[in-house]
Amino acid sequence: MQLYHTMTATQGIRPTLTPLIQLIKPLGVLDSISSVLSWDEETWMPPSGIHRRAEQSAVLAQMTHERWHSAELRNALAPHIDLTTGVVNPDYTLEESRLVSETYRQWRKKIAIPTAFATRWAALVTEAQHCWQTARDHNDYTQFAPHLDQILVAVREKAQYLGYSQHPYDALLDCFEPGMTTQRLKSVFEPLKHGLRQQLAQCSFREDRPTLPGLFDEDKQWDLGVIILKKMGFDFNRGRQDRSAHPFTTTFGVDDVRITTRFSPTDILEGLSSTIHEGGHALYEQGLKAQWADTPLGTACSLGIHESQSRVWEVVIGRHAAFWEGIHPHVQAAFPENFANIDTKTMYRYVNHVAPGPIRVSADEVSYNMHIMIRFELEQQMLQGSIDAMALRDLWNAQYQQELGVHVRDDRTGILQDVHWSAGLIGYFPTYTLGNLYSVMVFEAAQRAIPNLMDCMANLEFTSFTQWLNETIHCHGQLYDAETLIHRATGERLSATPFLDYLQNKYPITD
Amino acid sequence: MQLYHTMTATQGIRPTLTPLIQLIKPLGVLDSISSVLSWDEETWMPPSGIHRRAEQSAVLAQMTHERWHSAELRNALAPHIDLTTGVVNPDYTLEESRLVSETYRQWRKKIAIPTAFATRWAALVTEAQHCWQTARDHNDYTQFAPHLDQILVAVREKAQYLGYSQHPYDALLDCFEPGMTTQRLKSVFEPLKHGLRQQLAQCSFREDRPTLPGLFDEDKQWDLGVIILKKMGFDFNRGRQDRSAHPFTTTFGVDDVRITTRFSPTDILEGLSSTIHEGGHALYEQGLKAQWADTPLGTACSLGIHESQSRVWEVVIGRHAAFWEGIHPHVQAAFPENFANIDTKTMYRYVNHVAPGPIRVSADEVSYNMHIMIRFELEQQMLQGSIDAMALRDLWNAQYQQELGVHVRDDRTGILQDVHWSAGLIGYFPTYTLGNLYSVMVFEAAQRAIPNLMDCMANLEFTSFTQWLNETIHCHGQLYDAETLIHRATGERLSATPFLDYLQNKYPITD
Repeated sequence: MQLYHTMTATQGIRPTLTPLIQLIKPLGVLDSISSVLSWDEETWMPPSGIHRRAEQSAVLAQMTHERWHSAELRNALAPHIDLTTGVVNPDYTLEESRLVSETYRQWRKKIAIPTAFATRWAALVTEAQHCWQTARDHNDYTQFAPHLDQILVAVREKAQYLGYSQHPYDALLDCFEPGMTTQRLKSVFEPLKHGLRQQLAQCSFREDRPTLPGLFDEDKQWDLGVIILKKMGFDFNRGRQDRSAHPFTTTFGVDDVRITTRFSPTDILEGLSSTIHEGGHALYEQGLKAQWADTPLGTACSLGIHESQSRVWEVVIGRHAAFWEGIHPHVQAAFPENFANIDTKTMYRYVNHVAPGPIRVSADEVSYNMHIMIRFELEQQMLQGSIDAMALRDLWNAQYQQELGVHVRDDRTGILQDVHWSAGLIGYFPTYTLGNLYSVMVFEAAQRAIPNLMDCMANLEFTSFTQWLNETIHCHGQLYDAETLIHRATGERLSATPFLDYLQNKYPITD
Repeated sequence: MQLYHTMTATQGIRPTLTPLIQLIKPLGVLDSISSVLSWDEETWMPPSGIHRRAEQSAVLAQMTHERWHSAELRNALAPHIDLTTGVVNPDYTLEESRLVSETYRQWRKKIAIPTAFATRWAALVTEAQHCWQTARDHNDYTQFAPHLDQILVAVREKAQYLGYSQHPYDALLDCFEPGMTTQRLKSVFEPLKHGLRQQLAQCSFREDRPTLPGLFDEDKQWDLGVIILKKMGFDFNRGRQDRSAHPFTTTFGVDDVRITTRFSPTDILEGLSSTIHEGGHALYEQGLKAQWADTPLGTACSLGIHESQSRVWEVVIGRHAAFWEGIHPHVQAAFPENFANIDTKTMYRYVNHVAPGPIRVSADEVSYNMHIMIRFELEQQMLQGSIDAMALRDLWNAQYQQELGVHVRDDRTGILQDVHWSAGLIGYFPTYTLGNLYSVMVFEAAQRAIPNLMDCMANLEFTSFTQWLNETIHCHGQLYDAETLIHRATGERLSATPFLDYLQNKYPITD
């Protein structure tokens, strides 16, 4: 029964690729169904629904697994690429070549993992996330450390299965940032860390943060967020926004992209930032090419590129003086009493206040990447086995003291703050910093391409900027790898320099 | 990879049935995932998400189809039942026997339909539903009639595939009301129709309907509905309520049952009725046995039984004088201005006003089943091929005039009012009337079992009633067929008499 008809995604692609496309598209659809289940779990699901949801997700995962491991898929790949070396037939166009090579890359990873290991891994991370949650609630890292040790053993095994040429960490990085290597990251992150240390040592912005008086009605915060999302170009006919404990973006398809947000009654910036951040992710997903849905050409390039799209909106624009010229009247109109005595300049100081703290997600843009540098270096040691989980907390706390001057007071705001490690996501954190570095490069390229961008921002007129992002980043999917995409979009190569210059310019170091 | 672990559902069941159970449980999980997709489509999905949703549903349907048609499933059934005659191994317990026979019944239907026909059918009903929607919007049946003719041809073919011993209509009925036959239905419906005619001819309640002044705030209607749902025993930890254009109940699992409702700003009864109706369906689903989830023993018995659970709450209780004694103070408290001059007796007259009209879903309980009688007889003729679709409208309108004294003014409120035929659901309507007949039988049995039921109703204290429903109906799943279940629950055999006596008692005929 052919209930599901694959569409005309083969336009411009040689017909011999059709069987491969017809096999991978349902896999993308299955993934999107998992996304629906996860979205509902985080938004509307009643408390007792969780066990059933796990069953539903497991059945889907099993079906997806069976299909990736099928002889059919292998046979559909084989005519187009050498399954041992990964070399694509030489006369293929760029589209054809990337379609094949990125499908192959994904397939290699799936079949590299033995089934028994995959089952064990799934049980391990489910258990570990549960224990992380409990340990965090109890503010007691020692409850979680044994699970982290198990995860580290498993993740080392996983890296062996996935394979690498230089460093096992490469195998993990490649899952989130295809093509990225430890060596390449170090070449970018070392100068970045050096520059950040200088910035953090002597930041002129170390004044008291202005305070915002009163409470902020949640419905009005919601409405303000919707105004901004619409101005950004988020299409509410092809997506929606909901509330959740942790904001996220998820994609059911190019025409159904969903974001979530959360609010603080005392800090208007929390809701605004999360709405704008997820809005940036969502524009990327809404901007992918529909004709390539469920193929690599219709899928976001990398987590680093994705994060660049959220951070360019949330931070580079969302904390820009010109943007606050534009948004401040809207904020004042929504909260006339709170903002009676808060002018634009004060608000600019509020949103750009620099004060290193223990929590990554609420860090200012000067200190944020130092949180990542600390995790990046710890992760490499964890993977090498040179530290065990129980020793990790001391190292963590010492690093926070040394690099950020922050005294970590407890586990909850220290080593237990992030879910990633409990979910087995080692090698993920660097993509946040890549996103920040890319975001500045992208914004500056846009400035060169759109001479009146400052005026546009001050008028909250983002049509040309969003269109530029779409044409240079969004629409390409995985047609290029991340570094190539950025080079094509900005004319520059990935480095820490643009970001450090941006910080230097925004937060000048005074003597 | 065994990501999905089938649980301990085999307790008390011979181990040789385990392979069968392990094959059918993921099929139930897949169905429940489809339910998540449908629920989201009707509640939160953004407008442009519809095409993607169709793709997702089609991929799931295809996977379900493949599994039902697999040799594995056939081989797992074969040791337990004669695949030709449907005779189960004689030494099996009732649980074992029903587990096998009801799985077999479902499997037979799936494999009886040729794949090519299933594909054609899916396309046909998708197209027909779309055209029905358009035709209804245009109030023009002639646009839909050609599609209905195609559906009738296809449904006759389907009946042949499914097989029957006496009447092709039996094959269709069995899809919704397992074991029910045309002959058996006629033996119940003919006396019913006769009795309804008498009731409708001379109904003492034919006075003017009281009017409710003012508008009813939707949030307050919502809150009132939640109060009632909680009193009914609906567990909000294991379910939730949302809004949708057409109210429905859907089950993701016994611990995640969702209902929807809708409100009218002028008629408080619309929201109340729909909330209570769906609440009744939901109690059934929340009351199934978790250990039998995804097997026939953990699945509702029939559509007729399901409808009895919604109608006993919505109509028998929800329009009962004792219930209105209990609920009226809540209604008054929620809408003090609207109900300043409306006493309980007036409200009772309002909710029980009898006035035959063209629309089935808003019919009073005296005329409701006549709408079904008309459809039941037309459907049999349609299936025999003795009328074509273009002639149907005249017959419809004539029947409404003759049986209900209703002049059908247009197609929208006439033959185009229901979606069922456009979805290929021929043989479905009779289950509504079975539900009504059963609902009275069930309520009267509960009255015998719970001597103070009237007091309970007047105090909105439903614990013992809901528990009684759970023990006599809900928890049994498909352990018995519908008529056996009702006989066990009530001590009586299905007939029109209890329902007609109930009407006679509630709406006495005066001369």
